[in-house]
Amino acid sequence: MGKITMEQGSGGAATAELIEGLFKDRLGNEYLDRMEDSSVVPGYKRLSVTTDSFVVRPVFYDGGDIGRLSVCGTVNDLLMSGSVPQYLTAGFVLEEGLDTDLLEKIVDSMADTAKEAGVRIVAGDTKVVESSGGEGGLIINTAGVGFVDEDVSVGARFIRPGDAVILSGNLGDHHAAIMKYRLNIKNNLIKSDNAPLNRMVRGLMEGGIKVRAMRDVTRGVLGTVLNEFAKESGADIVLQENSIPVSAAVRDFSGLLGLDIMYMGNEGKMVCAVAPEDKDRALRIIRDSEYGENAAVIGEVKETSEKPRLIMKTAVGGQRAVPPLFGEGLPRIC
Amino acid sequence: MGKITMEQGSGGAATAELIEGLFKDRLGNEYLDRMEDSSVVPGYKRLSVTTDSFVVRPVFYDGGDIGRLSVCGTVNDLLMSGSVPQYLTAGFVLEEGLDTDLLEKIVDSMADTAKEAGVRIVAGDTKVVESSGGEGGLIINTAGVGFVDEDVSVGARFIRPGDAVILSGNLGDHHAAIMKYRLNIKNNLIKSDNAPLNRMVRGLMEGGIKVRAMRDVTRGVLGTVLNEFAKESGADIVLQENSIPVSAAVRDFSGLLGLDIMYMGNEGKMVCAVAPEDKDRALRIIRDSEYGENAAVIGEVKETSEKPRLIMKTAVGGQRAVPPLFGEGLPRIC
Repeated sequence: MGKITMEQGSGGAATAELIEGLFKDRLGNEYLDRMEDSSVVPGYKRLSVTTDSFVVRPVFYDGGDIGRLSVCGTVNDLLMSGSVPQYLTAGFVLEEGLDTDLLEKIVDSMADTAKEAGVRIVAGDTKVVESSGGEGGLIINTAGVGFVDEDVSVGARFIRPGDAVILSGNLGDHHAAIMKYRLNIKNNLIKSDNAPLNRMVRGLMEGGIKVRAMRDVTRGVLGTVLNEFAKESGADIVLQENSIPVSAAVRDFSGLLGLDIMYMGNEGKMVCAVAPEDKDRALRIIRDSEYGENAAVIGEVKETSEKPRLIMKTAVGGQRAVPPLFGEGLPRIC
Repeated sequence: MGKITMEQGSGGAATAELIEGLFKDRLGNEYLDRMEDSSVVPGYKRLSVTTDSFVVRPVFYDGGDIGRLSVCGTVNDLLMSGSVPQYLTAGFVLEEGLDTDLLEKIVDSMADTAKEAGVRIVAGDTKVVESSGGEGGLIINTAGVGFVDEDVSVGARFIRPGDAVILSGNLGDHHAAIMKYRLNIKNNLIKSDNAPLNRMVRGLMEGGIKVRAMRDVTRGVLGTVLNEFAKESGADIVLQENSIPVSAAVRDFSGLLGLDIMYMGNEGKMVCAVAPEDKDRALRIIRDSEYGENAAVIGEVKETSEKPRLIMKTAVGGQRAVPPLFGEGLPRIC
């Protein structure tokens, strides 16, 4: 259907056509359609605010695409503060030569995911830059605004000894899905977990669960996130290795390549610390939610007199400290 | 001082060091410092929301840099809806090999400009991608949230016949400043107008001026913006060519290169339509504001029975329709 041109980044007639013909049909709503410099939308007493840029390659992969990812990533970040996601902004940086059919599919995917997550895209921006190497790519930034009720206090600093640590599902799916493309490995069982967690989090909040802290397990892998939990709370996080859910396909994949599941990213999983008395009920709510069927209690918060650490108890009865991710990780995973 | 590495985009220890050592010192505040997935901040009944990605080349130019631009662009977009800008998010996409000294200067410039504009950067994200061609570059996305009072209604759809059209200063400065680098022209008199317009807009709002609509005159140049005013209001916008303020240096520069000032972008100018009875007072307020000393009334809104147009009355008594920008404009001007 065509290729993106520098002209479409001019801010003039060609940009207006691109917006009318491609973006507005797919993402349009009463706010975005006004096309003012900024959108005026209803507010709330407390807000959550976040941003994320998405540079993932390939842009389509089993289980998702950069469009779905760009909505899920920001929606999930908003949810992690206990807020109800409301508004997203979308900033597109398109490379000259990008296939417009591809862009249409990506924007369709954003629209579908925004609908699923209950958010509206209220502001957008499109820039076009020279192609960096033949095939046109794109980067998407989304920022998000959520509404936070006054009695909500969620954050790593609220974690206390005794709290249970729950992981919402299988670890490593997104990482393995991206890596199989890079290594040209065919394996239909490996799919990204790209998903918005709004229903799961809403379930916990409405169920009155005392949620101390939540983090989505993305590029900031479980090993890194739980070290942050330890640092911020001043307590040890003690995990049971054999309680960490992993699919058989990803376990085989990571075993074959010598990858440590603690350093493999997801895009539809969260880890949370909840009050001990709410442990069983929280687990049930998460398991009953979409995308939460494999959730498990993976550990506990324990008082320490030393420097707080993330500790892994192994299946054979040993234990080791797990440091945050060092080194490169997997570039352009999100 | 070093170069940005892929490792610093991992989301692990190296990313944490970059954030602690470079970003937090410069941009830190009580919200950003919490380092949660999203920041919880005080809200308001009505909000304005916007986003913009900045891909300008060169990243430093006379009168500004990509850091200052990334704050001004989004702050000004928020202001144009009559809101008071409050929060920004900052998404950095850094190319591997980017000089960290350069990045420090850019982030310093963001911090200074945010202070000048009265906004706080409450959420951030950093990605690192492969270099597209030797020298490391960067892209910055900022999204913004402002507070809008309940009695504020500003937008192109509120423009009526009789309204005065005011331009806040000299046209074309940013465009000429970027172009002189591209063409390798030495001219110390040409400088970008990169500036936040918060004081000017506050002056108008607090002065009780009936502002119908405001737009900052950026990549969406005056020719394009005023065509949008005509279209949205259903009225003609009639300009007096000799009333449009341009510096002598930019007039000479554009004359030499055969550029039309109506299609040259700025980054610290706005055009507004105000009620006829407020014309003189509005002009005085803008002129008395920082960055507004060259403001002028440049035209008027006129009823039409035809398709609404932007019309230019020339110095010699002729008139012509001015279409929106067609073609490429100047790539990577913002």
